[in-house]
Amino acid sequence: MIESRIKQTVRDVQDFPKPGIIFKDITPILKDPGLCMDITAALAKQLSNVAIDVVAGIESRGFLFGPSLAQLLNVPFIPIRKAGKLPYKTMQESYDLEYGSATIECHQDALLKGQRVLIHDDLLATGGTVVAASKLVMQMEATVAAYSFIISLDFLNGRKRLTPYGSEVFSLASY
Amino acid sequence: MIESRIKQTVRDVQDFPKPGIIFKDITPILKDPGLCMDITAALAKQLSNVAIDVVAGIESRGFLFGPSLAQLLNVPFIPIRKAGKLPYKTMQESYDLEYGSATIECHQDALLKGQRVLIHDDLLATGGTVVAASKLVMQMEATVAAYSFIISLDFLNGRKRLTPYGSEVFSLASY
Repeated sequence: MIESRIKQTVRDVQDFPKPGIIFKDITPILKDPGLCMDITAALAKQLSNVAIDVVAGIESRGFLFGPSLAQLLNVPFIPIRKAGKLPYKTMQESYDLEYGSATIECHQDALLKGQRVLIHDDLLATGGTVVAASKLVMQMEATVAAYSFIISLDFLNGRKRLTPYGSEVFSLASY
Repeated sequence: MIESRIKQTVRDVQDFPKPGIIFKDITPILKDPGLCMDITAALAKQLSNVAIDVVAGIESRGFLFGPSLAQLLNVPFIPIRKAGKLPYKTMQESYDLEYGSATIECHQDALLKGQRVLIHDDLLATGGTVVAASKLVMQMEATVAAYSFIISLDFLNGRKRLTPYGSEVFSLASY
C-alpha cells in the first residue's frame, strides 16, 4: 500500500525548522525512483473523477512531483513562486507568517478565466501558503478543482482552513 | 527536432533580473506536457553512454525536470538547496555572487563515496552555482559524471568554467 511505503520511507527530523517541530523529510523518497513513480501514479489515480485543466505547484517542493503529475494528467503545469523569481508580469498574494509576511506569485498569463486548477504541494501543514495559492487562483478568475498532497499533517487542521474554497483535499499519507 | 521546439516555446523576457539581461523564461515549456515528456526523454538519451548513479538537481528550477530524469534513468534524485532549507545534517559550499555570496547544501547522507553524479539544472548561464555544486559533490568524495541542462547560454562561457571538473556538458538547446 502506498501510504505505508511512504510512511516507512519518510524521515522524521526533530526540531526543524525550530525546537518542538518534527519535520517530515521527503528526501529519502526521492532516492527511490520506483516509489516516486508509484506516488505520481497514485496521486493521479486519486484525481480520476476530478476535472482538472491545470496543475499549479508551489515552490520549491511542489516542483518535485507537480510536473510529473501534470504530464500524467496531460495538462499544463504552472509554478507558484516566491515573489521576485518569475521573470514575466505577475499576480501576487501576500499572507501572514508567525513573524512577518510572505508573498507568492504566478505569471499573469498562467491561467485562463474559468480553468479548473489542481493545487499541489508535497505536504499540507497549517495550510497558510495553500490558502494564499487558492486566493491567487481566484484572483485570476479560475477555480480550485482540488488539492493534492503526498502527506497531510491532519493534526494541524490545514484541511479545515481549505474548506471555504469548496474543493476536495487529497493526500496519500495522513498523520 | 527538440532544440527548435524548445527555442520556439521559450519566452525572452527583457531586463530580468536586471537591466540589459534577456531572461530565458521556461514557463511556456511547462504548459506543454508532451514537450516536457519529450525533453526528459531527450535529456536521458544524451546520457545513454554515461554511467550515472545519482541525479542531483539544483533548487528550484532543477527540481522541475530532475526527478523525472532520475526516474527515467532509474537512479536516486538528490536536491541541492539554498542554505537552511534541508532539515537533516548538511554539507555546504559557498560561492561569490556579483554582490555578496550564496551558500548551497545537500544532506550529508545524500551521496556515497565514489558515486557518479549527474548535475542537472534547467539552464547553464555563467556557471557559478554549478561550479559550487561540483565542489559539493567532490567534498562528499563523489564524482561529477556529467552536466545536463535544457538550455545553455554558451556566450556566457559557463561550459569553460566547468571543464576543470573533467566532465561532459550536455544541453538540448544552445544560444
